[in-house]
Amino acid sequence: MYPESLKSLIENFKSFPGIGEKTAERMAFNLLDFDNDRIESLEECIKNVRQNIHKCPICQTLTDKEICTICSDKTRDDESLCVVEDSKIVFLFERIGIYKGKYHVLNGLISPLDEINPEDIGIEKILDRLKTQKYKEIILALKPSIEGEITSLYIKKILESPEIKITRLASGVPMGADMEYIDSLTLSKALEDRKEIS
Amino acid sequence: MYPESLKSLIENFKSFPGIGEKTAERMAFNLLDFDNDRIESLEECIKNVRQNIHKCPICQTLTDKEICTICSDKTRDDESLCVVEDSKIVFLFERIGIYKGKYHVLNGLISPLDEINPEDIGIEKILDRLKTQKYKEIILALKPSIEGEITSLYIKKILESPEIKITRLASGVPMGADMEYIDSLTLSKALEDRKEIS
Repeated sequence: MYPESLKSLIENFKSFPGIGEKTAERMAFNLLDFDNDRIESLEECIKNVRQNIHKCPICQTLTDKEICTICSDKTRDDESLCVVEDSKIVFLFERIGIYKGKYHVLNGLISPLDEINPEDIGIEKILDRLKTQKYKEIILALKPSIEGEITSLYIKKILESPEIKITRLASGVPMGADMEYIDSLTLSKALEDRKEIS
Repeated sequence: MYPESLKSLIENFKSFPGIGEKTAERMAFNLLDFDNDRIESLEECIKNVRQNIHKCPICQTLTDKEICTICSDKTRDDESLCVVEDSKIVFLFERIGIYKGKYHVLNGLISPLDEINPEDIGIEKILDRLKTQKYKEIILALKPSIEGEITSLYIKKILESPEIKITRLASGVPMGADMEYIDSLTLSKALEDRKEIS
């Protein structure tokens, strides 16, 4: 129904995560109304991101610097390492701003069903860091799912040593959540991990 | 927090209609994982759309042909004209496939509040078509809103002639809708326009 090139652009937008048919159509129609400056700016942005953004060789966070600003920040706690599954989580933590240690970004989570093994997510890079840096605490901030659990347990097993405290994020009821909409797994976890009111 | 070029791309995606912060972030991160072929295909699609898609000089529908496939289709009813506010609506009607006449696409709707006047939406182009083609019916398929109503009334006034039947889409309860969720305006319209059961 749509002219061919319009259809291709809609299909292309649709292949982005979270973009459905309707949104892809609106984006494509919107792009037709762009002036040339706006198109050039979009193309420039895409080019810059592709050229400038790469993984920090130390922590694997996406960065446009040779070493990311977090790894090169001398004021941060070098003896605390927060392990996350994705750069997005680093930016999320940084936005909150309460964590002052260093990060390590995995390339996803171990998932035996999808044949994603420890070597596929770059766990060995954490071991490399341990050779040159002493850590007091390693925080496993992984997704509260089966894959997150497997990955946490695996990392705990290979890193375990009397000098390193290995912790994970608390699971439980999200702040402000409506109790009746909380799933039973979260609720039982929250009950199990209940804390004394001080 | 994000590296500069990544932030710019996210901002750029966010300026598309219907794209919020989270989706723009997911799109930008996704784009970082694209291989070069996928990037080239996106850039190619954008280029093609910008180069090939223009308005049909007769009906103003977006097309990649000199004259759009609907206007050049000899099997369609030349004496019926369906006026819509946007090319998207043409593609929507065509997908349903029950209308077999011709179209005319306005450039939006009259909106006194936004200072959009009849000359801004290209109504005169309909008058041009009337000079060379006889129409039995003109269907005003405009949005059921104040702007749609104003535009319909304006077009009716300037086109009115004993030879042309000017109609508009029926308003009323959408098929399959839950009665209790229908707004009062729609419901009163549906009551007002009620039809005898035959």
